[in-house]
Amino acid sequence: MSSEQYVVGVDYGTLSGRAVVVRVSDGAELGTGVHPYPHAVLERALPGTEVLLPPEWALQVPEDYREVLRVAVPAAVEAAGIDPAQVIGIATDFTACTMVPTLADGTPLNEVDGLADRPHAYVKLWKHHAAQGQADRINQLARDRAEPWLPRYGGLISSEWEFAKGLQLFEEDRDLYDRMEHWVEAADWIVWQLCGTYVRNACTAGYKGIRQDGAYPSPEFLAALSPGFGDFVTDKLEHSIGALGEKAGTLTAEAAAWTGLPEGIAVAVGNVDAHVTAPAAQAVGSGQMVAIMGTSTCHVMNAEVLREVPGMCGVVDGGIVDGLWGYEAGQSGVGDIFGWFVDHGVPASYVEAAAAAGESVHEHLTRLASQQEIGEHGLVALDWHSGNRSVLVDHELSGLVVGQTLATRAEDVYRALLEATAFGTRVIVETFRDSGVPVEEFIVAGGLQKNALLMQVYADVTRLPLSVIDSEQGPALGSAIHAAVAAGAYDDVPAAAKQMGKVRRHVFVPDEARAAAYDPLFEQYVALHDHFGRATTTMRRLKAIRRDAVARKGA
Amino acid sequence: MSSEQYVVGVDYGTLSGRAVVVRVSDGAELGTGVHPYPHAVLERALPGTEVLLPPEWALQVPEDYREVLRVAVPAAVEAAGIDPAQVIGIATDFTACTMVPTLADGTPLNEVDGLADRPHAYVKLWKHHAAQGQADRINQLARDRAEPWLPRYGGLISSEWEFAKGLQLFEEDRDLYDRMEHWVEAADWIVWQLCGTYVRNACTAGYKGIRQDGAYPSPEFLAALSPGFGDFVTDKLEHSIGALGEKAGTLTAEAAAWTGLPEGIAVAVGNVDAHVTAPAAQAVGSGQMVAIMGTSTCHVMNAEVLREVPGMCGVVDGGIVDGLWGYEAGQSGVGDIFGWFVDHGVPASYVEAAAAAGESVHEHLTRLASQQEIGEHGLVALDWHSGNRSVLVDHELSGLVVGQTLATRAEDVYRALLEATAFGTRVIVETFRDSGVPVEEFIVAGGLQKNALLMQVYADVTRLPLSVIDSEQGPALGSAIHAAVAAGAYDDVPAAAKQMGKVRRHVFVPDEARAAAYDPLFEQYVALHDHFGRATTTMRRLKAIRRDAVARKGA
Repeated sequence: MSSEQYVVGVDYGTLSGRAVVVRVSDGAELGTGVHPYPHAVLERALPGTEVLLPPEWALQVPEDYREVLRVAVPAAVEAAGIDPAQVIGIATDFTACTMVPTLADGTPLNEVDGLADRPHAYVKLWKHHAAQGQADRINQLARDRAEPWLPRYGGLISSEWEFAKGLQLFEEDRDLYDRMEHWVEAADWIVWQLCGTYVRNACTAGYKGIRQDGAYPSPEFLAALSPGFGDFVTDKLEHSIGALGEKAGTLTAEAAAWTGLPEGIAVAVGNVDAHVTAPAAQAVGSGQMVAIMGTSTCHVMNAEVLREVPGMCGVVDGGIVDGLWGYEAGQSGVGDIFGWFVDHGVPASYVEAAAAAGESVHEHLTRLASQQEIGEHGLVALDWHSGNRSVLVDHELSGLVVGQTLATRAEDVYRALLEATAFGTRVIVETFRDSGVPVEEFIVAGGLQKNALLMQVYADVTRLPLSVIDSEQGPALGSAIHAAVAAGAYDDVPAAAKQMGKVRRHVFVPDEARAAAYDPLFEQYVALHDHFGRATTTMRRLKAIRRDAVARKGA
Repeated sequence: MSSEQYVVGVDYGTLSGRAVVVRVSDGAELGTGVHPYPHAVLERALPGTEVLLPPEWALQVPEDYREVLRVAVPAAVEAAGIDPAQVIGIATDFTACTMVPTLADGTPLNEVDGLADRPHAYVKLWKHHAAQGQADRINQLARDRAEPWLPRYGGLISSEWEFAKGLQLFEEDRDLYDRMEHWVEAADWIVWQLCGTYVRNACTAGYKGIRQDGAYPSPEFLAALSPGFGDFVTDKLEHSIGALGEKAGTLTAEAAAWTGLPEGIAVAVGNVDAHVTAPAAQAVGSGQMVAIMGTSTCHVMNAEVLREVPGMCGVVDGGIVDGLWGYEAGQSGVGDIFGWFVDHGVPASYVEAAAAAGESVHEHLTRLASQQEIGEHGLVALDWHSGNRSVLVDHELSGLVVGQTLATRAEDVYRALLEATAFGTRVIVETFRDSGVPVEEFIVAGGLQKNALLMQVYADVTRLPLSVIDSEQGPALGSAIHAAVAAGAYDDVPAAAKQMGKVRRHVFVPDEARAAAYDPLFEQYVALHDHFGRATTTMRRLKAIRRDAVARKGA
């Protein structure tokens, strides 16, 4: 079988892990193995106990992650039909911010005798939203003290991130907090399992861990948050940093036994699913914005300059590619809005017509919407059904459709919703540009790239050429690229991305006539955006009224 | 068979005429006959010709109206099982503004030899909307000249009314205009057919004919509109006025032969469907607002005072009941919005669940919505899918829903739309109150009274006791009341209404806790109302963008 070399990339998603065997020379994806987490997401109770979880909690079980190594990796190698001896490295990417509380040796607290019935001993998944109160206090205090790191996060620290979740643990189970030796990103914990070494990756340390210019929030700041919390960074969080693409260590005998891969091969520094997609799409240069478009959209982009972009999720030195500033932004609802509309706003006749035409309802609505002239539906929508991340950073916002008449039909609203997310993207792109971080190309990964109308709308609305990743498993491919670099097969991630990444360039190009036709609609979108997002409290009031009503009903 | 006396009321709707035989002593409805107009509404071509009609045209054929007298009236008498000799009077109500161009003897121009192929020779139905350009010029000139009658119409003359339609005829078929001797409301033309006498009723002369304080718009005003149009009033429009409830004349031998009723019985002055419903619901006093709620809502109310109410449709001396000022307002979309949503925004699962439960989809959504706490859906809508008549008077406005999330369901939107129309009513009620014309009671007629949730929402939102008419043929009953007065059986319409009208009083009463729960939602409705209705041009721009897009597509 020649001298071909292979790497394994493992993508840890919300519900399953996916391993892919990739050829180092050209990035060919040769075999895949997928393993769902046996415990999925814990939202109601701890496993094997009667301990119930409060609302907004979302936990996971670390052993499920190890099981992916034992099941999915061998399955991928087998599917690839390669000799595992030719695998030279392995790398992983993970959801973030997903946090594991551990002992000094990396043992998760839920695996410690007597702690299995303590909710705070488990992994707090990225979508654990029970630390909002802590996040609010972090933000208020940071604003009051004018902390210099706050603008690096668009002015807002998320309840999903390391400090809010850590402060919740500190305040709600002090005994457990005191027994915890490390507060570890799952992205780093899984690497620790593979190579026996704890290396904190620069990406999550920067975006989720508020590490800026080599420092974290100060002990004074932390103590002011909560007495006794001042040593959180030094006691629990701080650790040696690994740059993305570096080798964290080598595969241990134990992990080699789990995976069937050779002991001693390179294990790369951990990474995050969205960020690792950039090299998979060959988008590692300044001004190449990668949008991972699924239920929501995450935008990542490198730049040589450091700028403060209002409403971004964060900017981190080496956060995507070592040596460049990595910017992240997001739209909190995209595909889930389209899915919600198809499920809850489309009459039976469309479902029947779609079935008769052998189309999905999405395809059917898209085909009908494609026949429209721009603006023909007379609608503008705001894409805030799940709130707005960038650039308003307000989860109390909600959706809106304006312009409906008795002639409005389902395809009209559907198209308006597609356009609304494109307008939301244009707001982000323009905000980056106005902040001195121009976007030159827009590269799409994720499931929504399949909708050609949507893609053309994005190209026209943003006036950017639109490329699409040429892989259906972008994160795993991105991890494989990092594995190849960590193994020394390439000098750096950009070099590896050039050979192993896959992109179809400029598949959709903006048409100036169509772009001009969208401008007056975008003008109305911006007017609505600024009115409801900045000038008035209507949407916040509606959420408050709703909460009051639900409380009245429960009482 | 005794000495009972009877009257016949005939209600001329958009597509058919309905005759009802009513007992004079107590208003009992004894028999009904309905006759659809053979030509219905002419919107595409003239009958028996190849003459096509432009968009927005809506014509009718006068002979269809006579046929109702020949068919529906005898059918009603037969159904009632009474002796026609005991009928003492007949009265009619009509859609308005519906206009008939005639010779001096009342012959419609389309019946004149050689004119059957001339579109302008036919009846222009109320919903003929091709005179918008003329209406715009009338309004602009009236504003420029500060015509004192303009505020009597809330600041806007409709394209549906006598002057806009008359000016269109003048400008588009001058020869026909010159041959026309009278420009007659159909409400008066049908009375002319019955008694051989042309009497102009005070209601349409005031609301649709701009007759205020005994005068019409001046020759100077008319000449400034279009050279040669200055004599429009004196040549074509002006005629002796009959008060509502007066006798216009007696049934001719010819009309007696058509109807089977005795020659010489009283024929009442003509009337309008909405206005004649007030006495049918015993709502002839100051402060009793009658809402005829169907696809749209028309509000009529008497008051002793003359006030200028912003955005009302009109205020006319004796416009509803002789001796009082009659106010009219309207909501251009109500039931049609609910119907549109059910047809185009409700998924199949609801249709199936409704069928399984033996309910209509309306009933199903209403039942689900009834289980909600006020504000639980987190939504506010604007009920402007067909524009807004009162109080904004702007047909370029459109619908809006704000507050949607991925948890929003069809019953949430449905309830928000019901509430939006109630909020629209509250705006009207408050505008009347603030203008010095307080509303004390809200009386509902029309099909929507069947929805108990909707009725309770209206009572709670407006904080008014809500009564409902106790007849399913309110306009015909109202006409019958006028017939009884014209025949001398009662002194006046209020006296007859007291005996013959039917209302269930205060069926729905406001609950203060619920009313208070609606207040914060109404506050948001008003904020949206003023933002989109007054402060911004968003909705107008969307309509313009839509028109441009349709034009581009056609090009």
